[in-house]
Amino acid sequence: MIKLIALYKKPVDPAGFDKHYDEVHTPLVRKYPGLRKLEITRITGAPIGEPRFHLLVEMYFDTKDAMDLAMASPEGKAVARDLMSFAADIITAFHGEVKGI
Amino acid sequence: MIKLIALYKKPVDPAGFDKHYDEVHTPLVRKYPGLRKLEITRITGAPIGEPRFHLLVEMYFDTKDAMDLAMASPEGKAVARDLMSFAADIITAFHGEVKGI
Repeated sequence: MIKLIALYKKPVDPAGFDKHYDEVHTPLVRKYPGLRKLEITRITGAPIGEPRFHLLVEMYFDTKDAMDLAMASPEGKAVARDLMSFAADIITAFHGEVKGI
Repeated sequence: MIKLIALYKKPVDPAGFDKHYDEVHTPLVRKYPGLRKLEITRITGAPIGEPRFHLLVEMYFDTKDAMDLAMASPEGKAVARDLMSFAADIITAFHGEVKGI
């Protein structure tokens, strides 16, 4: 399985970010064709010091092809467009092969 | 549920890092008392450009107390000690509340 990972740094306005993320962005993400699982983690702390990150979002797909198709689809483009409107400066995105142990 | 997240930047010697991670570090992590799930993701790319990260490791616990106890246990201290021996300069660790949708 592969997952697309979106990691958000602390936003300037966390409450405004959360509201947009929950009410506008999450419904768009859920429309990704082929999305098998969505896991959202609110960062609440760190073992040492303060965490630099606010939110970790993981989107699971069966294969890399399925993930690529999802991102290239109209629904995927709507996700990217919305992202650029509210989180362009704080998001880092990457993907990888998942191994559960 | 809460998860402890360890995010590793690209190591100087990825093959050496992977060997140590798989053969030495993972067996130590699996000994965390109260560990409910371990998910390891090898970062293989990014939607734009090259990913800065190499590995994402997620350790799930029932509660924050369970996670804190695990980290403070002898097994947790062995994990931290090993980490400092091979990844001190490339690891970022944080934790958060997990919400599956």
